[in-house]
Amino acid sequence: MNQLINQQDLEFLLYDLLDAESLLSHPHYQDHSRETFDAFIEIADKIARKHFLPHNAKADAEEPKFDGDSISIIPEVQPALEEYAAAGFIAARHLYDNGGMQMPAVIASACQSFFFSANPSTAGYPFLTTAASNLIAAFASESQKNQYLPGLLDGRIFGTMALTEPDVGSSLGDLKTSATAQTDGSYLIKGQKMFISAGDHPLSENIVHLVLARISTAPAGVKGISLFIVPKFLLDGNAENASRNDVQVTGLLHKMGYRGITSTVLNFGDKNSCQGFLVGEPNQGLMYMFKMMNEARIGVGLGAAMIGYRGYLSSLEYARNRPQGRLPSNRDSSSKPVKLIEHADVRRMLLAQKSYVEGSLALCLYAAKLMDLSEASPEESEKLAAKQLLNLFTPVVKSFPSTYGTKANDLAIQVLGGSGYTRDYPVEQCYRDNRLNPIHEGTEGIQALDLLGRKLWQDNSQAFGQLLALIKDTLQQAEKTGLVKPATALEKATDRLARTTRALGKALATEGPDKTLANASLYLDSFGRVVIAWLWLKQAVIAKNKLSETNAQQSQQAFLLGKIQTASYYIHWELPEIFHLLQLLEDLDPVCFEMQADWF
Amino acid sequence: MNQLINQQDLEFLLYDLLDAESLLSHPHYQDHSRETFDAFIEIADKIARKHFLPHNAKADAEEPKFDGDSISIIPEVQPALEEYAAAGFIAARHLYDNGGMQMPAVIASACQSFFFSANPSTAGYPFLTTAASNLIAAFASESQKNQYLPGLLDGRIFGTMALTEPDVGSSLGDLKTSATAQTDGSYLIKGQKMFISAGDHPLSENIVHLVLARISTAPAGVKGISLFIVPKFLLDGNAENASRNDVQVTGLLHKMGYRGITSTVLNFGDKNSCQGFLVGEPNQGLMYMFKMMNEARIGVGLGAAMIGYRGYLSSLEYARNRPQGRLPSNRDSSSKPVKLIEHADVRRMLLAQKSYVEGSLALCLYAAKLMDLSEASPEESEKLAAKQLLNLFTPVVKSFPSTYGTKANDLAIQVLGGSGYTRDYPVEQCYRDNRLNPIHEGTEGIQALDLLGRKLWQDNSQAFGQLLALIKDTLQQAEKTGLVKPATALEKATDRLARTTRALGKALATEGPDKTLANASLYLDSFGRVVIAWLWLKQAVIAKNKLSETNAQQSQQAFLLGKIQTASYYIHWELPEIFHLLQLLEDLDPVCFEMQADWF
Repeated sequence: MNQLINQQDLEFLLYDLLDAESLLSHPHYQDHSRETFDAFIEIADKIARKHFLPHNAKADAEEPKFDGDSISIIPEVQPALEEYAAAGFIAARHLYDNGGMQMPAVIASACQSFFFSANPSTAGYPFLTTAASNLIAAFASESQKNQYLPGLLDGRIFGTMALTEPDVGSSLGDLKTSATAQTDGSYLIKGQKMFISAGDHPLSENIVHLVLARISTAPAGVKGISLFIVPKFLLDGNAENASRNDVQVTGLLHKMGYRGITSTVLNFGDKNSCQGFLVGEPNQGLMYMFKMMNEARIGVGLGAAMIGYRGYLSSLEYARNRPQGRLPSNRDSSSKPVKLIEHADVRRMLLAQKSYVEGSLALCLYAAKLMDLSEASPEESEKLAAKQLLNLFTPVVKSFPSTYGTKANDLAIQVLGGSGYTRDYPVEQCYRDNRLNPIHEGTEGIQALDLLGRKLWQDNSQAFGQLLALIKDTLQQAEKTGLVKPATALEKATDRLARTTRALGKALATEGPDKTLANASLYLDSFGRVVIAWLWLKQAVIAKNKLSETNAQQSQQAFLLGKIQTASYYIHWELPEIFHLLQLLEDLDPVCFEMQADWF
Repeated sequence: MNQLINQQDLEFLLYDLLDAESLLSHPHYQDHSRETFDAFIEIADKIARKHFLPHNAKADAEEPKFDGDSISIIPEVQPALEEYAAAGFIAARHLYDNGGMQMPAVIASACQSFFFSANPSTAGYPFLTTAASNLIAAFASESQKNQYLPGLLDGRIFGTMALTEPDVGSSLGDLKTSATAQTDGSYLIKGQKMFISAGDHPLSENIVHLVLARISTAPAGVKGISLFIVPKFLLDGNAENASRNDVQVTGLLHKMGYRGITSTVLNFGDKNSCQGFLVGEPNQGLMYMFKMMNEARIGVGLGAAMIGYRGYLSSLEYARNRPQGRLPSNRDSSSKPVKLIEHADVRRMLLAQKSYVEGSLALCLYAAKLMDLSEASPEESEKLAAKQLLNLFTPVVKSFPSTYGTKANDLAIQVLGGSGYTRDYPVEQCYRDNRLNPIHEGTEGIQALDLLGRKLWQDNSQAFGQLLALIKDTLQQAEKTGLVKPATALEKATDRLARTTRALGKALATEGPDKTLANASLYLDSFGRVVIAWLWLKQAVIAKNKLSETNAQQSQQAFLLGKIQTASYYIHWELPEIFHLLQLLEDLDPVCFEMQADWF
């Protein structure tokens, strides 16, 4: 089997839920068609299955090694990445002029989902490279683009994000890496970075580090951060590798999962000769980096969703095939055991997984479509609206799949029982791999502060207003379709979320940020659940309509009934937990805020 | 640091919450004193720290190897186990006459908690041996006791539980291993067992497998299961190893965690010469095995609690020492970063962990004291009451710490962030190790069916009535102490649990077991939360009284304030989630029950 995704589901999400074909009317995508979309997706499936999946477990068991000088990686990784680049996946979204395909993000993300499902570690290398190429395309000078973009897009150069420092962690304003201007316009970079994924490896001819550093004269904090291109090999006038730059890996971090991709400690300028090239204006580095970071956050969400999805499919297959026990009413021990999936509690665990992972994938693809609209919609108002909504959604797209994808993997192990705990089945690796996602690119706590402390209130909360209007629209459709019970439940939850949001907005002014934001992570969770419940109700409406409209085949009917049942599950089982969370938020419940360090 | 447990907490639980000293008035324990208890605990701490902790990570990194013939294990394990046995921990609870110490279970469990915290894998070997020795002491014949008990108690023989078979899993009634009576009174055993922890190793002179098998003439299902002693080496008349029995390890299972203890596939009777010795009566095997299993379930709970506890202490230490970021109100980037623990969201993650792990440890020690009362109370009514309550609590003692100890480890990783995801810190191993606990000795789903389908209704639900009376008593004390708010919250939750329980009792009769038990896992979770909330309220009452009574030292005051604050956290943050779960239960919500296999 080794299914990477339920194709029926992907098609439903792309074309029924998100109407990806509507993008074809935008001039930017006009050369595409449903056929080019589907063909590209089919190639992704094929390469992911043939070149990524087979070495996923091996790359985990035989992680990259550092001998003090260079890094070695199992031989299967490089040809997989060559196939990936050759098929055009790194360049997919770039302009035709730059050698790209002008593929919509929603389709590129659909393709990416196969690679994340098959092998998240190997998929990490081109994922970072794609994000780096987008940043350079957006903010670097023409000559920098000419130097680096072609190599990045065809996979000769890989990219990294070099933000974190050993003593600084999430608090970027405290970073210490320094940049000293040279007479030739370049900078000398000096400092140490840590947890740099793909920070060194033998997989590409060159590596471009996008490094945050502080120019000597810069103001303190986040306002004094600049962005530099620091290549592993300095380029000559023909954009060929000329000489080794003074950036060195000094160690690998050994992780619980995601072991196939190196996580490195990098020293810049140990010999005082590390050259870096300023991107854009000084002290604007964080703003540029957020271009990459936001994309990375959405990518992390998609990766988390797909690791969750892979585990779900594995546990579903196991539950359908494994005979085990009897229903409680059956006391006849000579009767045949039933399949695991016949036990209601196993169905509960599968339903929870399905609701998390298909819901997360829907959310990530929704965000990708917002990216497309915000970049390429011919209508300015739609462009702005998409930009605002994407901005609001980003912390949720990062965090919901990370938390619940990992929870899905936990349930997948439980469905398999003792077998799931062994390395003979893929679910334990999924669980270990996915556990990184609630941490990197901003922890869940950071996302919560971003949402409740910042995103909600930008542009006069227009994005939140948009969300409420979108939900209202879905509620009306649901009532028309006869889905009254889940619509009523979602309406109640949404109203309560809106009420709490208003109360917190006031509290920010009257009680100050420390107390008001103390329970932000409960808000992030509640907000995420409402969004996911909304996406499930939308799916149920579409499924209900399709069921009544068509003479659907039996397998199609079963699929649509499953969508409706899962929407019921999510809205009646998972969503109502927010009422308690929102009450704690409205009360500004002080129990965590007032706990003292020495009371533990 | 490497603290294995908060000593102040352990003392509080043993002597303030559980009044372990009250056991000294029982004849069975009369030779003991607070001093002998504390001395034994101190030895456990010392041996655990010196001989168990140092090789915990190494045993994980270098797991046992099987070369097709024999198994090798890192050299640190054997001397650790020799120290453990020599100090008398295996024999602790046995009769003086058998070479034991007649130590109460509550004290033996307190000792065991240090070993589980330090190194759960190595602690697993004597844990199984202890359980096997208790079963043999309770049910084996005098001559069997004479043969095996001395070796088990001094650590020359180790024990196992051999229940699971490859195609059978949790459904013991379907097991196929056969036992054929021989003329000498012994049996020939034939079959395969899987997931047998400590099933083979070079750590002891001999291994005694307690094997469930079916005598050829036995009835089908669980009523036809008998219990056999199957030693690795057959003994001669002097209880010395005489010849190798026909039981062979054919493979090791490679687990995600708990790697230091072998998990084996065992073949019995490949050469048709595997000798087994019937314990007690034929076809009563499951009843005997449940003696071992119930003890194992409580031990699994304690192990899960302590792996959670170790992770909690690690993350607490990190959060207290690591400077990171500033409070939201502080926009001065030149100000000094605060410690991680100053962030409310980090305190939330620490409070949740503290509530889970200290609550779980309280529950396990409470169960251990019930074991003491049920075995040694001089009053028959107390004995019976303790037996009933322990019976009711067993699935909760097994499952609550397993689920929430693992959740605590998840939060510990999150507190450490990127560092927590690396193997340089102990928390990722805790997370992997603990994930076994919701699976073995009966999955959470099995425990849920045991509680809602069986335990609740036994003896006319007297045990549940006892629990309600115990909670009522604590509520009255809490109100007297001024803890009105948490008492009111717990009362409301308890009343609702009682109402739902009655409704489900009726539904079992009217709707049948399949539909009524479909959502049993929600009941198990709700029930567990009420019990833990009750134990927290009890602790808060004691803490409040101690605070007002004494001129407590500052560190003692801080500790007591922390107990009260954590009780508030648990009762106001975690407990109220049950109302939604209980509503689903009362509604016999059919969403999982009615989901169809082909709809996924």
